[in-house]
Amino acid sequence: MGELPKFVEFREMGPREGFQIEKRHYPLEDRVKIIDALSETGVKHIQMASFVSPKFVPSMADAEELFAGISLREGVHYEGIWFNRRGFDRAMATPGAYITGKMGLYTSNEFCLKNNNCTAEEQRQRQLEMLDLYDSCGLQVEQASILTAFGCNLSGEVPISKVMDCVLFIKETCLGQGRELPIIYLVDTVGWANPEDIKRRVGAVRELMPDVRIGLHLHDTRGLGGANFYAGLEMGVDLFDSSVAGLGGCPFAAFKDPNAAGNVCTEDMVFMCEELGIETGIDLEKMIEAARITESIMGRTLPGKIMHSGSLGTFRKVRKNS
Amino acid sequence: MGELPKFVEFREMGPREGFQIEKRHYPLEDRVKIIDALSETGVKHIQMASFVSPKFVPSMADAEELFAGISLREGVHYEGIWFNRRGFDRAMATPGAYITGKMGLYTSNEFCLKNNNCTAEEQRQRQLEMLDLYDSCGLQVEQASILTAFGCNLSGEVPISKVMDCVLFIKETCLGQGRELPIIYLVDTVGWANPEDIKRRVGAVRELMPDVRIGLHLHDTRGLGGANFYAGLEMGVDLFDSSVAGLGGCPFAAFKDPNAAGNVCTEDMVFMCEELGIETGIDLEKMIEAARITESIMGRTLPGKIMHSGSLGTFRKVRKNS
Repeated sequence: MGELPKFVEFREMGPREGFQIEKRHYPLEDRVKIIDALSETGVKHIQMASFVSPKFVPSMADAEELFAGISLREGVHYEGIWFNRRGFDRAMATPGAYITGKMGLYTSNEFCLKNNNCTAEEQRQRQLEMLDLYDSCGLQVEQASILTAFGCNLSGEVPISKVMDCVLFIKETCLGQGRELPIIYLVDTVGWANPEDIKRRVGAVRELMPDVRIGLHLHDTRGLGGANFYAGLEMGVDLFDSSVAGLGGCPFAAFKDPNAAGNVCTEDMVFMCEELGIETGIDLEKMIEAARITESIMGRTLPGKIMHSGSLGTFRKVRKNS
Repeated sequence: MGELPKFVEFREMGPREGFQIEKRHYPLEDRVKIIDALSETGVKHIQMASFVSPKFVPSMADAEELFAGISLREGVHYEGIWFNRRGFDRAMATPGAYITGKMGLYTSNEFCLKNNNCTAEEQRQRQLEMLDLYDSCGLQVEQASILTAFGCNLSGEVPISKVMDCVLFIKETCLGQGRELPIIYLVDTVGWANPEDIKRRVGAVRELMPDVRIGLHLHDTRGLGGANFYAGLEMGVDLFDSSVAGLGGCPFAAFKDPNAAGNVCTEDMVFMCEELGIETGIDLEKMIEAARITESIMGRTLPGKIMHSGSLGTFRKVRKNS
């Protein structure tokens, strides 16, 4: 294990992950308020919405209006995701949307069928078509995500070899064909990861692609999110997805319990980084404030911890003044 | 860093930590139900109550009745804690109460004054008197706890030297005077610990007392509980306090927010251990069931995660049968 990174980049998933699973409709202005609050925190990447069929994800029907409603802040990437050509075209037509080439691969056939209505192999073929499309638009591939990279509720254990098989496919189709590939994301879609497994899988990806930057997309489904995050830090990982207030979940995988945990919580993990002397570029107090706004809009207790207990800044300050 | 331990012992704090902060009165039979459910899980140590003045902690007024109400299970230690001679006498007079010699020291004067109504130095003198009392009763000292061992809301940062000073006092008064001392607990009373600090402080204690077993009493106040637990495992720590469903808190330190997190959650941490191949002697599914009973009795969403999402056992089983 190497040293902890000096700087960690957070990509905020809350607005997309949090609202995609909601049955209840939240007014556009409420979601705008959350995104605008996040824009003020210093976070540089906010995943806002999915450009998907409203038939499947009704809460994402107004993705374009959401982009039109927010106050775009310079230097912040506002991202909407897509799964196919139609979604990509919508994203391209949306002013303010941050667009880069992206790949998404599944280790689990069953999960891919549920999530994308195609087999994992068909998904690979679709990705090749998307790569051609990105090439034709002059877009570089910024990242490839390996979903269900730690285990899957539908297909069970995911051996490392399946993850490696995805990595090799990515390597061949990107680097092997003269494309750059800055980032590979390991996605713990349904909360199977444990800290030792984080280390093993990050290590295995690094062995195959020593120059790629590894990102971790973690869920706190079974309470191991923080430990998994720390294990990532111990492996030198410096890029994490997280959700303000711990919003999130997966519409196809999670239990229907509204109290089931979502992604690892942005402000709690920013706090961890600060305590470990790692810079994040994020103002913790402002992120806590964004979490409180989010909780008040969602109208129920959210999983984030430090938003309920307060950071240590005040206690340290009191002491210095006393 | 050494290897992860092969076996981790959990000491269940929920009934004491969880109810001491409650303003609302919960009927005796509800608390009995929780403790009896815990007794079924395989956990060998349950901290049930405090023998303290009902004036200060009204919810603990019926500690004796609680002991009388539960179904004592052979091999389980049912513990009630005390802070002074009067509390000790009550414990001694309570059938079924597990009694050993214990010391409690504070790094923070301010916190000790709030919690114990004496200075940290006076507390040391009281501990010496208690040691004499234990000697006269033929009780061995089983453990010494260092409270506010990572930081304090009232006195701010706690330098390692203050913890070391407590360790030296413990060493002198126990080993130096011919007493045994199996365990030193580092207590993160108000949730200041971070994973690197866990490693530093555990390492420092071990350097001074290589043969003592180290226990960690962790709170998840700011969302780092799981990461701190894992950092403890990485240091080879094999003894942890935790609370079913993540109950807990400190009446003198926590914000009054009822959603503030408590101790690290027993069933989530048992799950972590299982995933890491560490035995605990605890039946995870039974502990999840105890957590659900607890949540239903408390009448609000509790912080535990896996009780809301389910363990991985079913998903693995489904796969094997398919």
